[in-house]
Amino acid sequence: MDNGGFCYDNYHSGSSDDELVDISDVTVDYNEDVPPLDRDYSTGHCKADWRPNSSPKLMDLLDVSGIGTYEDFNTIDWVREKSRDRDRHREITNKSKHSTLALIFSISDAFSGWLLMLLIGLMSGALAGGIDIAAHWMTDLKEGVCLDGFWFNHEDCCWTYNGTTFKERDKCPQWKSWAELMVGVSESTVWYAYMASYFMYVCWALFFSFLAVILVRAFAPYACGSGIPEIKTILSGFIIRGYLGKWTLIIKTITLVLAVSSGLSLGKEGPLVHVACCCANILCHFFTKYRRNEAKRREVLSAASAVGVSVAFGAPIGGVLFSLEEVSYYFPLKTLWRSFFAALVAAFTLRSINPFGNSRLVLFYVEFHTPWHFLELIPFILLGIFGGLWGAFFIRANIAWCRLRKNTSFGHYPVLEVIIVTLVTAFLAFPNEFTRMSSSTLISELFNDCSLLDSSKLCNYTSVGGGRGGSVNATIANALADRPAGPGLYTAMWQLALALLFKMVMTVATFGMKVPSGLFIPSMAVGAIAGRLLGVFMEQLAVYHHDWAIFRGWCSPGTDCITPGLYAMVGAAACLGGVTRMTVSLVVIMFELTGGLEYIVPLMAAAMTSKWVADAFGRESIYEAHIRLNGYPFLEAKEEFRHKTLATDVMRPRRSDPPLSVLTQSGMSVEEVERLIADTTYSGFPVVLSLTSQRLVGFVLRRDLIISLENARRHQEGVVSVSAVLFTECDPPASPNAPPAVKLRSILDLSPFTVTVHTPMEIVVDIFRKLGLRQCLVTQNGRLLGIITKKDILKHMAQMANRDPDSILFN
Amino acid sequence: MDNGGFCYDNYHSGSSDDELVDISDVTVDYNEDVPPLDRDYSTGHCKADWRPNSSPKLMDLLDVSGIGTYEDFNTIDWVREKSRDRDRHREITNKSKHSTLALIFSISDAFSGWLLMLLIGLMSGALAGGIDIAAHWMTDLKEGVCLDGFWFNHEDCCWTYNGTTFKERDKCPQWKSWAELMVGVSESTVWYAYMASYFMYVCWALFFSFLAVILVRAFAPYACGSGIPEIKTILSGFIIRGYLGKWTLIIKTITLVLAVSSGLSLGKEGPLVHVACCCANILCHFFTKYRRNEAKRREVLSAASAVGVSVAFGAPIGGVLFSLEEVSYYFPLKTLWRSFFAALVAAFTLRSINPFGNSRLVLFYVEFHTPWHFLELIPFILLGIFGGLWGAFFIRANIAWCRLRKNTSFGHYPVLEVIIVTLVTAFLAFPNEFTRMSSSTLISELFNDCSLLDSSKLCNYTSVGGGRGGSVNATIANALADRPAGPGLYTAMWQLALALLFKMVMTVATFGMKVPSGLFIPSMAVGAIAGRLLGVFMEQLAVYHHDWAIFRGWCSPGTDCITPGLYAMVGAAACLGGVTRMTVSLVVIMFELTGGLEYIVPLMAAAMTSKWVADAFGRESIYEAHIRLNGYPFLEAKEEFRHKTLATDVMRPRRSDPPLSVLTQSGMSVEEVERLIADTTYSGFPVVLSLTSQRLVGFVLRRDLIISLENARRHQEGVVSVSAVLFTECDPPASPNAPPAVKLRSILDLSPFTVTVHTPMEIVVDIFRKLGLRQCLVTQNGRLLGIITKKDILKHMAQMANRDPDSILFN
Repeated sequence: MDNGGFCYDNYHSGSSDDELVDISDVTVDYNEDVPPLDRDYSTGHCKADWRPNSSPKLMDLLDVSGIGTYEDFNTIDWVREKSRDRDRHREITNKSKHSTLALIFSISDAFSGWLLMLLIGLMSGALAGGIDIAAHWMTDLKEGVCLDGFWFNHEDCCWTYNGTTFKERDKCPQWKSWAELMVGVSESTVWYAYMASYFMYVCWALFFSFLAVILVRAFAPYACGSGIPEIKTILSGFIIRGYLGKWTLIIKTITLVLAVSSGLSLGKEGPLVHVACCCANILCHFFTKYRRNEAKRREVLSAASAVGVSVAFGAPIGGVLFSLEEVSYYFPLKTLWRSFFAALVAAFTLRSINPFGNSRLVLFYVEFHTPWHFLELIPFILLGIFGGLWGAFFIRANIAWCRLRKNTSFGHYPVLEVIIVTLVTAFLAFPNEFTRMSSSTLISELFNDCSLLDSSKLCNYTSVGGGRGGSVNATIANALADRPAGPGLYTAMWQLALALLFKMVMTVATFGMKVPSGLFIPSMAVGAIAGRLLGVFMEQLAVYHHDWAIFRGWCSPGTDCITPGLYAMVGAAACLGGVTRMTVSLVVIMFELTGGLEYIVPLMAAAMTSKWVADAFGRESIYEAHIRLNGYPFLEAKEEFRHKTLATDVMRPRRSDPPLSVLTQSGMSVEEVERLIADTTYSGFPVVLSLTSQRLVGFVLRRDLIISLENARRHQEGVVSVSAVLFTECDPPASPNAPPAVKLRSILDLSPFTVTVHTPMEIVVDIFRKLGLRQCLVTQNGRLLGIITKKDILKHMAQMANRDPDSILFN
Repeated sequence: MDNGGFCYDNYHSGSSDDELVDISDVTVDYNEDVPPLDRDYSTGHCKADWRPNSSPKLMDLLDVSGIGTYEDFNTIDWVREKSRDRDRHREITNKSKHSTLALIFSISDAFSGWLLMLLIGLMSGALAGGIDIAAHWMTDLKEGVCLDGFWFNHEDCCWTYNGTTFKERDKCPQWKSWAELMVGVSESTVWYAYMASYFMYVCWALFFSFLAVILVRAFAPYACGSGIPEIKTILSGFIIRGYLGKWTLIIKTITLVLAVSSGLSLGKEGPLVHVACCCANILCHFFTKYRRNEAKRREVLSAASAVGVSVAFGAPIGGVLFSLEEVSYYFPLKTLWRSFFAALVAAFTLRSINPFGNSRLVLFYVEFHTPWHFLELIPFILLGIFGGLWGAFFIRANIAWCRLRKNTSFGHYPVLEVIIVTLVTAFLAFPNEFTRMSSSTLISELFNDCSLLDSSKLCNYTSVGGGRGGSVNATIANALADRPAGPGLYTAMWQLALALLFKMVMTVATFGMKVPSGLFIPSMAVGAIAGRLLGVFMEQLAVYHHDWAIFRGWCSPGTDCITPGLYAMVGAAACLGGVTRMTVSLVVIMFELTGGLEYIVPLMAAAMTSKWVADAFGRESIYEAHIRLNGYPFLEAKEEFRHKTLATDVMRPRRSDPPLSVLTQSGMSVEEVERLIADTTYSGFPVVLSLTSQRLVGFVLRRDLIISLENARRHQEGVVSVSAVLFTECDPPASPNAPPAVKLRSILDLSPFTVTVHTPMEIVVDIFRKLGLRQCLVTQNGRLLGIITKKDILKHMAQMANRDPDSILFN
């Protein structure tokens, strides 16, 4: 047996065998809050402060020299971060017992989390309101301009005009379309006016998208896309500097408005999550507690993603569940409560800004009047199947497209790509009124339950009495129900079918371009169109075939039995579910839109079917697919690792590799350590008692080691290349003329996680996920054999799934 | 260096030092789904199947002899259970590739979880409906009887009677109060009739509660209380056999109706969670997947507790969040989705039974018409403070009372206690109409926003015109608003104040008696009374002092500015929050009652204040306090362990203790092992290479060891006391005439969890919580030094909090 240069002052008294049991270095300096335990303490041994990351001295070290920070594109160590926060909290609590000032500081520290949430809610709500207003104005700008002031949008411009009907009010004299300004309006110029409008529409779209892509390229490349895949990765512990910075925030906000206004097939809901996270990250800088701690900051970011969805849909509960289900990695209950608070604050801030001008909290407010029938579950499930198929198709097609962009020269011209896609989109979109309007207007029209006053084409029904349209006969209550479709509705159906095709193709091409782009709204639009088509089909079927067995009993003549708007809603949920694989949060968001538990069952049936169908083609959501495409180190928490491999199959070194690079706790010189650092690229090294015994003492991070050695060489007197590097608690006996040793026990992690070689990988994966580890050491019978890092696990998982293990790019 | 009797056939080729590195026993037999890794495999070594719990052989062993099961009042090993489930799943998946029948079985296995959820939803919904109907009927039975049929309750009895007003209809001739039957009704007998009613009320109450306590005592002692503390403990991994059995279900269902009907200050909402969990547990028996696996069963139970709250309040989303926030321990996302499904099914089952006769899903349906003003947050926060104080007071008082019951002879007469409490309750409750009615009726009356037709005393306002009451003047729309209180309301205020006092005292005495008793409803009643009192006070203040600064601007004469019902609701939320420390789930349940996001902010302000105030007096909820009172081994996931102790301070053996009892992997005889088992009571033993090296090989459970040794002695030929017990993979060379060895490697857990002595306890606690461990071994420099069990941690935590560590009773 070796004792590895340890200093023994006394020995464990109750040792059963003749071997020295080296637990004498277990020093316990009790705090005030720790009552003494029933132990007799051996005295006289070398006192050293070896508690990892807990002593004030070490805290200073962390502050000064960069020890304890991470490099860009690296994974954080959750255990270490949480430990540091607990130490910090302990220190504040201890101090608060001694002075009033410290007590006040301690209280303000405790409430700073709530204050931060309040600020995030206010800021995100305000930004979302601004984005809504700006996008609304700029979308209208494509159509025309207000003579009273160019900053008014169409609705505000015509606000004061007293038209008798909605339609008339829309055509107020203050609002001039570009056609009117350019060619005037008369019977003879209709064609020219149309072409002028068309031309201006395309021009504005091109201008907006060109501006957007240029701004993104020039100032903040991270501002493109929806940001959710990256946020998921960041929340799981990855570091991407600048991704949530102020430039990203500013540029994303501006370009989001531009991109939405350009009429591209994209939404602002996903990017709003990114915007909210940027706000959170920036606001974190004002609170030491969150600025300094990566784990705490991620708690705040989890809450911010709830805020993002809350302002996007006006659904705070749905937002919290979205964060919990879809985005977050570490979500303690405290965060749940705070997220909820922030989401509410944001929703109410947005409401008080009132960007939609209707005092509604929600993006699509729907009120249905007819209950659904049990048999309608069949079309709802059909919509679910459609949603699942669309989701699977979209993910595959979009990933193939993105891979093409990534791997071929086609990806070198992002600006050109955006311009071409915008040109095609605008060119095709204008002639069809359903694609010309913004996607969110389209969705709310599709969700709408036709009322008597509706002038929309979708509500063009023939009155039962044989009248022109359903919009006049306001006296008969049942005039709404059971009407055959009018010619306008038939036209609308054709237009919707074309719009469906258009949306499906353009969304695939758009998501992933170098402009901010969310896919909540495009996915919902696809589903809502499909749903409305099916709904109208079912409705007309019922109108003409009341005698069919399936309609008998609940859909007799004269009853209002089928609501096409509900079908649109169910379809939207199904398609969104198929693409994002959200479940509970999706249903809750939809529930918050309607406010009635009544319609949860159809939504749930569709969402469930959609998820099952889509999962049959591949279990990844679009976000996970993009994470994998980018090679981020993301350990999915949802899917269980089901293979039968063991830790020994995954650990490094492999049998054919050279042995594990380790440090010994004493006996190595500065030069030897530096050579080891230079020769290898590992991000950390285990420290063992001695090379022969391979008994594990601790683990030291490469970064910490480099910084400490540099620091020692610079500031510690007499340190030369042959100086010993000691990780021991006390100095071993050294010859009197030896150069002073570099003592590095303070940077040594004395409690590294270990598993045995026999541990099944499913358990190792579980440990990594639940504890948020970066690496784990592998032992057998108390002997260090190897190391498993998060990257090793991800590579192993890729290999097990027959994917290329080298697609995992980062640590 | 010792090699502990290991068989070495070949050695690690890349070993850097001269020592033998014993990883040669790492056998990897690849499955079909595992592609070969980049390793060269050494051949010719001893092949043994040492994968923990994975081989079919071992599975049989588990089936036959009780290995892998747990004793009553013990904690399960989550890691082991989850491993077993994965093995099972893997086996089914592998088999399904070979035959169609197995494929069908595999699909049905995958959907069995959903089927189980459906069944739980249906059964719990039906039971809840039955309980509602029965309790309604029996509550009315205390008052009188229906002559058309005794099985009609008051409402059903008078359903067909055509009274002109609600009040008249209530007095239909078919319904006879006991007083009418006994003494008749005339002017002269009013006093006698009152006394007769009083007498019958008390008698019925005594009869019901006596029956309830007798049934509980005789058939199912586990049926008492709310059950939530025990369910929390069970979900965290504890085993209490029979707690969720069929007898508990039957008796709890019956006695719950009796207890609620007896008019005691208790609710049926908490026990409904227990009832739903019993349903789930019983239904689990029909599915092998869940019957055999304690971890999987707990997933189902988590969903069942969501179902319980869903049927109690008609709030499926709130139910799911309740389960997530309050009850569950291990709650994967899959469970979230399934819980939601089950909760919805249950809610809709309950609605189709329609026990309240109003087609409403929710227990208390409220619709408010007036928005709240920002300044009203002040009274809402006051209600929050009241709720927090009430929560803190209730927990302390109730725990003191329960401790008294537990420690003194007073606890030996549970039947007498119930009778006395019922007598006092009934005697005091009858004279006051607000305590005479059932608590849920009281709450819905208090929540109610007075409409013009309301005949309740609480809506007795003087008309502005000076009329008698507010119930006639239906033509003036604003007649509702801004009215001074009438004399009836003043009486009601006094009665409410007395009712508040009564409820507060009686709830403390009632919760914890040997009858089923929930405290959701009593807590809410306390809060609703306090809220209504404050609401009416504020309202009258506004009526008489429109000119005060705080009312100016929003509460001018003639406007309906203050809704006392909203105050009642906020008060109820605050008090419930103070007692249970629920946050998000509480707000969401309340939100589902009103269906408007509008009122979330007041509820949230009150719930937050209440939690903060209550937490200042002690961080435990009533459930956690009861768990601690009963000494259950429950590791709270919410609160962080903040002390600075290390694993070495908690591990056994202490310094003064004899050394750790270990087994060696070879070299011990059956007799020696048996003596060790007899001499100690530990539930498991570490296995080491040799006593001198103390290098850890694995961990073996006492129960498994006993069963295996007995099995070997009984069935294996030639096993005698001197036979060697081997945990090694291959047989060591033995003398030819030695008796056959008992090979026990199959019961050895080769991947026990280890931490180092230096690991901070906060990390150890985190590991225990997140991975659900039962024990963890403690090493230093690769040498086994001690063991930490869940009980050790709980004891240590109790000690740190200056509580008696011996209050933790179970393992």
